[in-house]
Amino acid sequence: MAETKKIPYKIYLDEKEIPQKWYNVRADMKNKPAPLVNPGTGKPMTFEELTPVFCEELVQQELDNDTPYFDIPQEIQEYYKTFRPSPLIRAYNLEKALGTPAHIYCKFEGNNTSGSHKLNSASAQAYYAKKQGLKGVTTETGAGQWGTALSMACAYFGLDCKVFMVKVSYEQKPFRREVMRTYGASVTPSPSMETEIGKKINAEFPGTTGSLGCAISEAVEVAVSNPGYRYVLGSVLNQVLLHQSVIGLEAKTACDKYDIKPDIIIGCAGGGSNLGGLIAPFMGEKLRGEQDYRIIAVEPASCPSFTRGVYAYDFCDTGMICPLAKMYTLGSGFIPSPNHAGGLRFHGMSPVLSQLYHDGYMEAVAVEQTSVFEAAEMFARTEGILPAPESSHAIRAAIDEALKCKETGEEKNILFGLTGTGYFDLKAYEAYNDGRMNDEIPTDEDLQKSIANLPKVDL
Amino acid sequence: MAETKKIPYKIYLDEKEIPQKWYNVRADMKNKPAPLVNPGTGKPMTFEELTPVFCEELVQQELDNDTPYFDIPQEIQEYYKTFRPSPLIRAYNLEKALGTPAHIYCKFEGNNTSGSHKLNSASAQAYYAKKQGLKGVTTETGAGQWGTALSMACAYFGLDCKVFMVKVSYEQKPFRREVMRTYGASVTPSPSMETEIGKKINAEFPGTTGSLGCAISEAVEVAVSNPGYRYVLGSVLNQVLLHQSVIGLEAKTACDKYDIKPDIIIGCAGGGSNLGGLIAPFMGEKLRGEQDYRIIAVEPASCPSFTRGVYAYDFCDTGMICPLAKMYTLGSGFIPSPNHAGGLRFHGMSPVLSQLYHDGYMEAVAVEQTSVFEAAEMFARTEGILPAPESSHAIRAAIDEALKCKETGEEKNILFGLTGTGYFDLKAYEAYNDGRMNDEIPTDEDLQKSIANLPKVDL
Repeated sequence: MAETKKIPYKIYLDEKEIPQKWYNVRADMKNKPAPLVNPGTGKPMTFEELTPVFCEELVQQELDNDTPYFDIPQEIQEYYKTFRPSPLIRAYNLEKALGTPAHIYCKFEGNNTSGSHKLNSASAQAYYAKKQGLKGVTTETGAGQWGTALSMACAYFGLDCKVFMVKVSYEQKPFRREVMRTYGASVTPSPSMETEIGKKINAEFPGTTGSLGCAISEAVEVAVSNPGYRYVLGSVLNQVLLHQSVIGLEAKTACDKYDIKPDIIIGCAGGGSNLGGLIAPFMGEKLRGEQDYRIIAVEPASCPSFTRGVYAYDFCDTGMICPLAKMYTLGSGFIPSPNHAGGLRFHGMSPVLSQLYHDGYMEAVAVEQTSVFEAAEMFARTEGILPAPESSHAIRAAIDEALKCKETGEEKNILFGLTGTGYFDLKAYEAYNDGRMNDEIPTDEDLQKSIANLPKVDL
Repeated sequence: MAETKKIPYKIYLDEKEIPQKWYNVRADMKNKPAPLVNPGTGKPMTFEELTPVFCEELVQQELDNDTPYFDIPQEIQEYYKTFRPSPLIRAYNLEKALGTPAHIYCKFEGNNTSGSHKLNSASAQAYYAKKQGLKGVTTETGAGQWGTALSMACAYFGLDCKVFMVKVSYEQKPFRREVMRTYGASVTPSPSMETEIGKKINAEFPGTTGSLGCAISEAVEVAVSNPGYRYVLGSVLNQVLLHQSVIGLEAKTACDKYDIKPDIIIGCAGGGSNLGGLIAPFMGEKLRGEQDYRIIAVEPASCPSFTRGVYAYDFCDTGMICPLAKMYTLGSGFIPSPNHAGGLRFHGMSPVLSQLYHDGYMEAVAVEQTSVFEAAEMFARTEGILPAPESSHAIRAAIDEALKCKETGEEKNILFGLTGTGYFDLKAYEAYNDGRMNDEIPTDEDLQKSIANLPKVDL
């Protein structure tokens, strides 16, 4: 475990070391993730069924469970150079404050204007849309990280970008909205009067502040009903995990350079895009039996899909218009308690990660949000980076593991994903600073109710 | 001008290349900057007169016009490693969008939670306060970058931090306030009822939303009336320019590594901390006659101290309690038009830069804010970084110079300081996006009035 080289605070790779291929972990999985299913036919979605909604090359990536590496197109590599490589940080000051013998590393993806790792996949999706000759893309955004990332990528590749932003976020997060507008995106509060489904929901629930499910439905409707448009999504999908593998590939290169072998790898998990990307190459080694790593998914106790959900086919959206995915789910109608701050509020989980968890390749823990903000504050004060609430779930778990090492005296290497910064989440920090933050987790009864009506799929 | 090595998008130095000494440009100036003057005695401020307000080692640095290099203490070097080295970015995409043969470089200081270069001096000032055995420091903040940086440094070095925040900013920038609170600082809206001067101003002007001058007075009052406290300031002072020389030293090391010789060096200028730091080693070469560089200070047309001010002794604060400094000034009562966005609103300018400008070593231009935000948007869209309004003044001037190169066909190297990010300035971006932003510059009559009552100093 002892390193032979002095490890700097931040390991920056050379530009030439930015990955030139994405790694597809599905190629090394014995049990492949279950296919997306057409809710109408009950059969796996085909290329032809998916391409009216998604870009063609992205659908190919979505359906390909066998090709281990995909070349990253030159144009995307060029764009990556403007915000990658991202640093691997040795959290020396946090270690010192904890008094732990553990070595804590984090892969920091927040040093770009979108403030998170989302830009890795937004770049790819915008590029393929442009390459296909499309005019633009549509999407939804809740907290706003994905919408911001997509706006940036669309500005770069010269593509129209239409974002449906959950109305309550649109009103409460005007800054996120302005970043998107500065990048030339049009941002519409959802439900809007621009779509059939928006009009219907506004009529049915006057004054509603919207939901992610509704925003997805609006974005999909606009994509399929406007020639030259497609819909894009920032998490959950196989293609997104493929693009996000740059995180793990870079982290692994940095680790290898300094002979660091992570014992524990930790990531927060909402839809799974960051965790799936961070662990990809490490999980590949584990699947191929070359190395062993403890891999831990951290989720909010208020939205505990891995730890308290069921593994079953379910809708990806609350509007029930998208394909069905087999995943750990709390039911597509599940909505976390209103006092839940930040993202990680999706009811399901990436089918790839769900299969890996089901097969015992990963662990999962759920953490409560006041303990998450306590960890966030400690990290901010010692390491100088104000973390996103989402990322702080991973910080919490990393601190907990480091404190176990303090008890046992073990000098373990802990690697976690620091997905982003919390500059647009200061309402939540304010609640924490004021002592107004609560923990509210769903009861067993709540969950039984929300998973009562899962769709039946018999492949 | 042609480089022999392929220049990456971002040049990151090795941790070992972070400067270990600050460079004091005063040592190479033939005409030294004029000394601070005691408004009571009309004589230069002595060490003894300054130490009740400022930390001792900082006063030594303030008064030392001869020592060319100061060792950066090991503890500060360690802290610097958590957020330095900062990248030197080659703005390839901006060049392409402009169609210019010029090569545009920027030194990006915004990749830390304070969002700006201010942390370079905050680190030093907090360290020296701790070393002197003090309990804490007080300061004022307007836009909030300096207050945030100081909070972070105080959290790191274990020092109490009391920030007086101009009331209108306190109310309109709750996010900045929460970052400071998260780092453990106490943030008080100014004028407050905690100081004599605050009470007096509140009584005299009920409902006032405060001013930087008043906040300075409150911070100084608390520092001098509480044992174990000192006052710290984030710009203007000689010591601040000394600390900020890390920007220029790193930039020069990166340039030298790739055989880049900047033809033009550009920085925004409010109090002068960023510009003074960026140009320091280059100016040193120019002063010693070793190299020539065009150096351009960029200021807002709404607060044009270099281009329309007078070079004279003046108060540094509107409350007229601080020492007098000889500088380009618009008069200590000058307040920019209310529609002026962002910082760079100080009525004066660093005495060091004022002397250099007076002696013809630098040029200055004033730019209007709608053109500044136009440049900011172009930079954000091409380079992916949402710049601070302050930094965008330098972007505007860099674009203008690059467009001149387009006309002449010259392949000049343009280096500018990208001091920070605009994540907390989205109200201003919103005004620009909505087409609600105006330019309003002071009339000659306004300026004649504001500089009518300068204090008389006869050394």
